Amino acid sequence: MAGARAAILDAVKSALSIEEIEVLPPGPGEVQVKYVASGVCHSDLHAITGDMLHPLPVILGHEGGGIVEAVGSGVTTCQVGDHVLTSYIPSCGTCSYCTIGRPNLCALRDRPRHLMLDGTSRFRRRDGSFVNHFLQVSSFATRAVLLQEGVIPIRKDAPLDVVCLVSCGVTAGMGAVLNRAKVKPGSTVVVFGCGGVGLNVIQAAELAGAGRVIAVDRLPYKLGLAEEFGATHLIDASKEDPVKRVHEITGGVGADYAFEAIGAPRVIETMLECLHRGGEAYIIGVSPHGARISIDPSLLVQERVLSGSSFGGSRQRVDLPMIVDLFMQGKVKLRELVSRRLGLDDVNRAFELLNRGEVARSVLVYT
Amino acid sequence: MAGARAAILDAVKSALSIEEIEVLPPGPGEVQVKYVASGVCHSDLHAITGDMLHPLPVILGHEGGGIVEAVGSGVTTCQVGDHVLTSYIPSCGTCSYCTIGRPNLCALRDRPRHLMLDGTSRFRRRDGSFVNHFLQVSSFATRAVLLQEGVIPIRKDAPLDVVCLVSCGVTAGMGAVLNRAKVKPGSTVVVFGCGGVGLNVIQAAELAGAGRVIAVDRLPYKLGLAEEFGATHLIDASKEDPVKRVHEITGGVGADYAFEAIGAPRVIETMLECLHRGGEAYIIGVSPHGARISIDPSLLVQERVLSGSSFGGSRQRVDLPMIVDLFMQGKVKLRELVSRRLGLDDVNRAFELLNRGEVARSVLVYT
Repeated sequence: MAGARAAILDAVKSALSIEEIEVLPPGPGEVQVKYVASGVCHSDLHAITGDMLHPLPVILGHEGGGIVEAVGSGVTTCQVGDHVLTSYIPSCGTCSYCTIGRPNLCALRDRPRHLMLDGTSRFRRRDGSFVNHFLQVSSFATRAVLLQEGVIPIRKDAPLDVVCLVSCGVTAGMGAVLNRAKVKPGSTVVVFGCGGVGLNVIQAAELAGAGRVIAVDRLPYKLGLAEEFGATHLIDASKEDPVKRVHEITGGVGADYAFEAIGAPRVIETMLECLHRGGEAYIIGVSPHGARISIDPSLLVQERVLSGSSFGGSRQRVDLPMIVDLFMQGKVKLRELVSRRLGLDDVNRAFELLNRGEVARSVLVYT
Repeated sequence: MAGARAAILDAVKSALSIEEIEVLPPGPGEVQVKYVASGVCHSDLHAITGDMLHPLPVILGHEGGGIVEAVGSGVTTCQVGDHVLTSYIPSCGTCSYCTIGRPNLCALRDRPRHLMLDGTSRFRRRDGSFVNHFLQVSSFATRAVLLQEGVIPIRKDAPLDVVCLVSCGVTAGMGAVLNRAKVKPGSTVVVFGCGGVGLNVIQAAELAGAGRVIAVDRLPYKLGLAEEFGATHLIDASKEDPVKRVHEITGGVGADYAFEAIGAPRVIETMLECLHRGGEAYIIGVSPHGARISIDPSLLVQERVLSGSSFGGSRQRVDLPMIVDLFMQGKVKLRELVSRRLGLDDVNRAFELLNRGEVARSVLVYT
């Protein structure tokens, strides 16, 4: 049993409390990771606000980077000392989804994600009570136990307090472009929402050779970031109609691809209206529990495609290390995503900044 | 100027009137066709009921088979004596859609479809007034002028009073399976609606080697046809919950593909719920003007695909003759689709039968 510091959510809409906890040793197929850093993502915020329902108390955080410090029996995919990213969607390697090359849809998603596979938690409070895991990652802790299916070794020369962002937001955005849409050179891409995910849609579209990358947001700060990340056109949706502007920019044709990195139902509908016949729209953002989108079916009958992207359609063990490589080669911007570096004690401050749209990403760094 | 008999719609929800009309000679790029037969489709019915808005008066019909009897200047794609099917979506061959192999999305769709490209009609009543074209096809007439872009020559040994169904419903259904979904052998396909389109989804799924073809309808007569066309499982939606039954049939997994051949918003939503993560749903049916569908976006974020199929995603000049060939080889059922053969004078009777769900397809035969 090892000690750790962790940020615990006890009740919806309350502040996280920073506590010393105990971490039980990894069981069979489990891995104990000493976290070095974690990004702070909107999905964590959704759990706090109650837009995502989750058993409480819980240690949030799912964008972690760390070092393996112990492995349970039967662990074959990593060893002590490995530098690792987390995959908040585990992949078992043998279900029908993994087998056909879609490990991001792995059957393990259908198991409870707030406990380990044996139905228990590895986190114990000082009073002996248990705390739930979050997506079997819980990176708002200095130490955690994960499924080996959710631990992805990467090269040791990459800075974990930067590349931890690849564990969710970066891959969610880049993968939607590269794996799901397979954006073609010369094409026109529209991106709604220029935060920690949308900026990665933008840089992946540029990497894929898109001819036009049209960024849509309501915050000038984020539109500024969008330009820095490669957007060729900016639309301030608080001042202009995005559908009209996209059609103007494309000479009346419409866009080839659209991405929504917000999870706002109305924006999803708008995105579809920006496309020409046969164009493709991908939802990346997670909508509040119970949300519905309303669509004119004739847009779809004309062969527009509406789909989504779950962890960027990624093949985790291939794509996460690949994106880290692209960063190390200078082809992908990650440092520019880190608006703030904070300690674990400042986690509530990180959520305030996120909620106000004042950051692309905050990173919590554990020293 | 040539005479013809035609069924004319003068007002929404009124009976068509059978009249002698004059057909002006084909202009440049136009083709005069003596129709031999025409299928009667739900889209024609939508124009009568007002679910589809259309300028009146109009000569409906868009599932025609006939023989070229005159061509205007500059016509290069057919000649007098050719046996032809009609393509209610013309393809110009040079727009960006046609160029990338998606001629069913051709830019000519953006032009008014109730008149020829010069903005006038070729149909004149005895009193000298003009009557609108319908999708530049108007096959509820013994003779019409069409764009050469909407005329598809086929082999002369095929019976036009049967293969005329390939001009819309058969291609709409088969093409959705073969061109849009590209259904793989062994997969599970669900089809909602077993009329003139849905039956062709079923037979194409069987042709493509689907492992299970699950047919859903509310009418026992249509479920009987579905079985005849290759369905392996039947669901009477008036008695059973299709979502629950599909999951039972697939051992809890869900279907790989779903098709909706009705145009009913609620059914479109249901279709999506029948799929496993990453499954694909295609809307074929045309919904009433102004209809909206309401969807849980989380179904899409899990990489289910919602799209549609417009004239079966067909490459008209390739696919229509190919389907005729498959029929002549005995691999595609067409005669079994023809529930009734009627004369042009019986067109209103044909719509009554269609409206009551008593036919897969009626064919009007002009002698």
